[in-house]
Amino acid sequence: MAKRQDKPDETCPVARAVDLVGDRWSLLLVRDAFDGTRRFSDFQRGLGVARSILADRLRGLVEAGIFEVQPASDGTSYQEYVLTPQGEQLFPVVVALRQWGEQHLFEPGQAHSQLVETSSGKPLGWMQPMAADGRVIAPGAVSVRKVQ
Amino acid sequence: MAKRQDKPDETCPVARAVDLVGDRWSLLLVRDAFDGTRRFSDFQRGLGVARSILADRLRGLVEAGIFEVQPASDGTSYQEYVLTPQGEQLFPVVVALRQWGEQHLFEPGQAHSQLVETSSGKPLGWMQPMAADGRVIAPGAVSVRKVQ
Repeated sequence: MAKRQDKPDETCPVARAVDLVGDRWSLLLVRDAFDGTRRFSDFQRGLGVARSILADRLRGLVEAGIFEVQPASDGTSYQEYVLTPQGEQLFPVVVALRQWGEQHLFEPGQAHSQLVETSSGKPLGWMQPMAADGRVIAPGAVSVRKVQ
Repeated sequence: MAKRQDKPDETCPVARAVDLVGDRWSLLLVRDAFDGTRRFSDFQRGLGVARSILADRLRGLVEAGIFEVQPASDGTSYQEYVLTPQGEQLFPVVVALRQWGEQHLFEPGQAHSQLVETSSGKPLGWMQPMAADGRVIAPGAVSVRKVQ
């Protein structure tokens, strides 16, 4: 994790998070992992990214504890890149990015992919920051405070 | 928006979103805007970013419709960079990044900043993808489908 942390004493969790996943390829690798991609060649084919960049990003994400390398699930000699529990917990980040993109970055009627609950086929609800009691909280209603 | 879109026919909302905000500086600029920063010099001081990089990122975010340039609120000749409604709707993305960072990127007891509801002083609830009926949805329970 410290590898890509240029300010290890940074007290802002957003800053530490973006130091690890705040780049286009890393976010798309995490997205593809949620969609079931596990192998270097499949990540490369899906993203059309240079091998050197892909290798660098995957190495960084493994060092950050977001992916772990596992032997191939089919017993072949391939390695597979699988999200760790910490990596799996980026799900809200990817869904929030997706929902913002769905709402703002497509023309009406323009084809796009949608995330649905497999069992019901229904789209997910709209993610919004909420108080512990479930009230939706607007950006203007929050403050940042330091905690020890 | 199209400016930083290298695949304008990209049908994945996550990919379109990260094309616009999927870099460290852009995400931190949006974070700082939510925290009340409005002026070039204040963004620069807060982030310690080179003027040329800051100018490039702010220009891209204005072209993407995430920030808009306004005359200074105090009547001086300064320009201010203010989130548009589309930019304000990145709030769930920033909060999700923050909550992931809070949970995974600090040692127990290590100082960090926390986002609280100003009126109650209480931390926000934990953001999780949910079905329309409020059930929490795990990553393994969703599928991606194309919609026209």
